[in-house]
Amino acid sequence: MTQVRDARQGVTSEAIDRVAVREGVAATDLRDLVGRGMVVVPANPLHEHLEPVGIGSGLRVKVNANIGTAPGGGSTEDELRKLHVARDAGADTVMDLSIDGDLQTLRAELLRQCPLPFGTVPLYEAASSAACTNGAPERLSEDLLLEVVERQAKQGVDFMTVHCGLTQRALGLLRADTRRMGIVSRGGSLLAAWMIAHGKENPFYSRFDDLLAIARAHEVTLSLGDGLRPGCLADAGDAAQIEELVTLGELVRRARAAEVQVMVEGPGHVPLDQVRAHVTMQKTVCQQAPFYVLGPLVTDIAPGYDHIAGAIGGALAAWAGADFLCYITPAEHLGLPADEDVRAGVIAARIAAHAADVARGRAEARGRDDQMAAARWALDWERQSELALDPAVVRRWRAAWSETCGDMVDHAACSMCGAFCAVKTTRKAFGMNADRPVQANTN
Amino acid sequence: MTQVRDARQGVTSEAIDRVAVREGVAATDLRDLVGRGMVVVPANPLHEHLEPVGIGSGLRVKVNANIGTAPGGGSTEDELRKLHVARDAGADTVMDLSIDGDLQTLRAELLRQCPLPFGTVPLYEAASSAACTNGAPERLSEDLLLEVVERQAKQGVDFMTVHCGLTQRALGLLRADTRRMGIVSRGGSLLAAWMIAHGKENPFYSRFDDLLAIARAHEVTLSLGDGLRPGCLADAGDAAQIEELVTLGELVRRARAAEVQVMVEGPGHVPLDQVRAHVTMQKTVCQQAPFYVLGPLVTDIAPGYDHIAGAIGGALAAWAGADFLCYITPAEHLGLPADEDVRAGVIAARIAAHAADVARGRAEARGRDDQMAAARWALDWERQSELALDPAVVRRWRAAWSETCGDMVDHAACSMCGAFCAVKTTRKAFGMNADRPVQANTN
Repeated sequence: MTQVRDARQGVTSEAIDRVAVREGVAATDLRDLVGRGMVVVPANPLHEHLEPVGIGSGLRVKVNANIGTAPGGGSTEDELRKLHVARDAGADTVMDLSIDGDLQTLRAELLRQCPLPFGTVPLYEAASSAACTNGAPERLSEDLLLEVVERQAKQGVDFMTVHCGLTQRALGLLRADTRRMGIVSRGGSLLAAWMIAHGKENPFYSRFDDLLAIARAHEVTLSLGDGLRPGCLADAGDAAQIEELVTLGELVRRARAAEVQVMVEGPGHVPLDQVRAHVTMQKTVCQQAPFYVLGPLVTDIAPGYDHIAGAIGGALAAWAGADFLCYITPAEHLGLPADEDVRAGVIAARIAAHAADVARGRAEARGRDDQMAAARWALDWERQSELALDPAVVRRWRAAWSETCGDMVDHAACSMCGAFCAVKTTRKAFGMNADRPVQANTN
Repeated sequence: MTQVRDARQGVTSEAIDRVAVREGVAATDLRDLVGRGMVVVPANPLHEHLEPVGIGSGLRVKVNANIGTAPGGGSTEDELRKLHVARDAGADTVMDLSIDGDLQTLRAELLRQCPLPFGTVPLYEAASSAACTNGAPERLSEDLLLEVVERQAKQGVDFMTVHCGLTQRALGLLRADTRRMGIVSRGGSLLAAWMIAHGKENPFYSRFDDLLAIARAHEVTLSLGDGLRPGCLADAGDAAQIEELVTLGELVRRARAAEVQVMVEGPGHVPLDQVRAHVTMQKTVCQQAPFYVLGPLVTDIAPGYDHIAGAIGGALAAWAGADFLCYITPAEHLGLPADEDVRAGVIAARIAAHAADVARGRAEARGRDDQMAAARWALDWERQSELALDPAVVRRWRAAWSETCGDMVDHAACSMCGAFCAVKTTRKAFGMNADRPVQANTN
């Protein structure tokens, strides 16, 4: 039995029940959305201590943090630390993108310590064990790919990115097109190299039924990767990308028919004015499957600050209907993120997700902003800390200010205005107090 | 003679000529836009060594950095250092918001070292010299306000924020309305306190003709401040704010009639889904006067990261037609920005401005993204540094990576993927080289 089959038969899984409580929605409504494929609840029964999370229509926008090793960077200790940094910063899910070292042992330890839904890109383990470095995919085999998927499923991985839509037809369009950056997806480039070297179709596509069987048997949620996502503004929305998307839409249908939970990944680099169109098209072609975006970055010229470029694109995308934001860290395009990059990436994506939740009319999202407004009007700094996305940063500032101002009268104000505090001036002028807004005053 | 009068008579000022060259537009077209009030070129003839900047229709979106002292924070050395940090980070203009200390001496030194258009809020100096601390505006007089404006004009200030639209009618609406945060503008709150204490109209409104006479005599550009801007999402677009906006539109007409350059300031805190409406309304009511926004912040719950919340709102606002973004630093709502906050604020606003320039179809903006894409495809890291908004951050990452990888083969790739570099894999698979995109390959 899978969650999808259960849902369609009117059986609500424990995971769905728990998500419904957290989201403040009716469990029966959520169950119906899971049955129809508009919401996924990635929850591998072998993942112990999982706190299930729902992703999709009608739910809060979620944020994923990528961690993982690469040649020359990252150790077990590093990645475990990043896992906890990501969780503390408020990530909803974590993906382990490790491609170097003893991946199985690392993954087992990460899974053990990760109560969040945990995702992987199985192709990376296959490529790593087949030593596909420097563009050499020769030793990668179809069977190895599926073996790795099954092995990871049995380890308890909740969701997996599989680049199923990168077909020979899409590669042909890529060759014929005017792409500036070819393939920037690490997984996509490895698969393309394999397909060219072997003259065969993408095994994740040709053997999609085998993949579905594994996902079905182990309750793994598939995340259909976009190996041909644009790597620069100029490549956004070209024929190769859209051809891959059309294939992903077809595979969504097949996954739903197989009672497998499925979501779809999207770009990448997209100009501001095209973000809404991309999301609308993607959601339509993929029949409202949950949409998982990487950024998108609205400019190519912000290395070192791509978390900001990604927050702009992510806010717009989520407002337009994207359900799940993969964080971008300041290290994007430069290297492996350090702890502080992980934290900055999660916070930036959470700002985007929250701004979109507000724009989409989620009352409890906006309620937090309104409570913050009240705390600011009251100059209640502890309450402001509690309501802030990152309480620690507010407390640090306040501690420093307390030290500076000592027994100054205007301790309640902040160092931005001090004795010229607009809130204090306004309150006094209108004869208002800390918990009364303007309209209560009859002056 | 003012620049506006000159422009209307077909005379192109040297400042307009220089801006036209920098922007790549025809000087005669720019002159006409200045004459019609759709572009301002703040350029006080007494500001020596000024590199003039144009703000408005058809021009690159500009970024302002606020610096300045407050009670308990900031010294002459601090503010001079921040001036240079802001300029190095790429700010187009700087405003000195100092309200504590010897303001005239500080301003003179800042002006001397600042080749960027330099703005102030004269009310702050008036409030400071009248000791209007803790909401006590009693000693502030109408004459003092105008004297300070004139004194600053004679010092060489290029543009000044004057909160002219905060009328008794607007205050009445504010009282009658359901505002949660009253007045959050420091200047706005001081004026409102004065108006209530004295039972009189806002002197910047009642004596607007005197203000225009000073601006005209000294070629000062007026920036009509929004003292009633929303301080939280809940207050966005309420009657008090819109009433003030209507007044600002009326004052734009009067400034244009007086041959004075004028721009208009806007919010503040605005939900994502309302940003475009705000900008469209503002530009319409103010007859396409250049629009200068503070943020807007798309959420209230991101203290410590408001530069990101502001970049999201700023990108949307500028795409919708805003011309000038006032930066928000990570210190917003917390305290005076330190050097690193100034830098972070400028870069975040520049990302927003650039993303909007791309979305608005500015070819030279998008050209830089396209060159970055080519540099990435070529794995040309020095070129990537040159094209980045912050070249230093790219160089720092590369230096660290060079040290890590020593004589490793994959030095050209980065630590994010190392030997699994997607660009290298794709190039090899398709038989392409570093300067050839995919379509040149006949494979």
